[in-house]
Amino acid sequence: MSTSKDTHTKHISQQFNSELSELKNRLLVMGGIVEQQVQNAVEALVNGDSELADRVRAKDKEVDQIELTIDEEATRIIAKRQPAASDLRLVVSVIKMVADLERIGDEAKKIAKFALALAEEGQAPRGYVEVRHIGTHVASMVRDALDAFARFDTKVALAVMKEDDAVDNEYRSATRALVTFMMEDPRSISRCLNIMWVLRALERVGDHANNVAEHVIFMVEGTDVRHAPMSYAEQAVERQS
Amino acid sequence: MSTSKDTHTKHISQQFNSELSELKNRLLVMGGIVEQQVQNAVEALVNGDSELADRVRAKDKEVDQIELTIDEEATRIIAKRQPAASDLRLVVSVIKMVADLERIGDEAKKIAKFALALAEEGQAPRGYVEVRHIGTHVASMVRDALDAFARFDTKVALAVMKEDDAVDNEYRSATRALVTFMMEDPRSISRCLNIMWVLRALERVGDHANNVAEHVIFMVEGTDVRHAPMSYAEQAVERQS
Repeated sequence: MSTSKDTHTKHISQQFNSELSELKNRLLVMGGIVEQQVQNAVEALVNGDSELADRVRAKDKEVDQIELTIDEEATRIIAKRQPAASDLRLVVSVIKMVADLERIGDEAKKIAKFALALAEEGQAPRGYVEVRHIGTHVASMVRDALDAFARFDTKVALAVMKEDDAVDNEYRSATRALVTFMMEDPRSISRCLNIMWVLRALERVGDHANNVAEHVIFMVEGTDVRHAPMSYAEQAVERQS
Repeated sequence: MSTSKDTHTKHISQQFNSELSELKNRLLVMGGIVEQQVQNAVEALVNGDSELADRVRAKDKEVDQIELTIDEEATRIIAKRQPAASDLRLVVSVIKMVADLERIGDEAKKIAKFALALAEEGQAPRGYVEVRHIGTHVASMVRDALDAFARFDTKVALAVMKEDDAVDNEYRSATRALVTFMMEDPRSISRCLNIMWVLRALERVGDHANNVAEHVIFMVEGTDVRHAPMSYAEQAVERQS
């Protein structure tokens, strides 16, 4: 039979859990938005859709506001609930991840800006295939990193980290092709440069998805796998299973 | 007269303060290193000094390790000391700022990589004046942002934020000049692109210095000035004086 004090403690603990899960949900909502932002920015670019590009740029303000709210909420939870162990790792990881998600949003906004510039200059089909391909790839990395976070699934997180190397290779290859094209047709330099900036932004999105994945592993395992060889992350995840 | 309990509490409080100031010092040390990394990377580039570029790349591993240590220490302080109010803002701000400093280190490493590529290709004087100029500018922003943090000086932090706009303008102007030059002399495309990536990296360093400055204002004032117009930051800082 529970005493009044037990009931009180249980109540506090339930409140705490619901605050943590609210924090987690907010991050997932923000993640869903920035993933969509990346996809929309790429669509706006390859389809020359200025209206969609404008929508992406406007939506970024909302992303920024969610960042502020999440940071405020995370700090409030630390102050009020004094979380320890895995709860604390969750809150600290959220504080880290929210910065990565915000920057993914920023990169989408930059891509939208280049989409507007390219739409004005007219079609520049060179590089669009690569933009779409790498765009789809990094958007799926963002989605998978968020899934890994939602389900505390470090195997999925590890897979995201491995994808990042593939994206880096795709990025380098696409960039090299554009340089060759610019040399063959100097009139295309300005347009090709815009595509290169877009590819760079997408490559950065992949980096941020990778960071989110690293934070998921830290959150679940308590092992910080940043700046370490892939084998270190693999060992941390294997210990779990 | 103090009781034994008072003495104990005072002892704990002294330990806590020394832990906070140790955390702060570690961040300042890391900041000093990455500022130097930016300067060295730029020197390596404009002087074609491959040996210095190699040193910058090697040193980045140390920066990465300091990041891990600071994050670990900050999390440990939260768990053990349950800081509140301005102490908590300090710790959370450190967790944010350490990520910006690490990325400044990353950008320096990238610049060093381009310095090596350019040293191999031979001199490419085009754009070096701008690289040196913007490099000096953003390195001083990093230094000022760290000074602002060391002295809790929000006026200096605000000045850093204002510098960032100037750097963005310098960056755009330097980039435009390079595009023009590439069109005039397509054989220079590859070298000019390397310089453009370097300018981009420096512009990012300025962004991260700006982020550090924003966190300093949050830490001191409790007002989050991110994603707000400059006038909002100005008001937050004026309230202090």
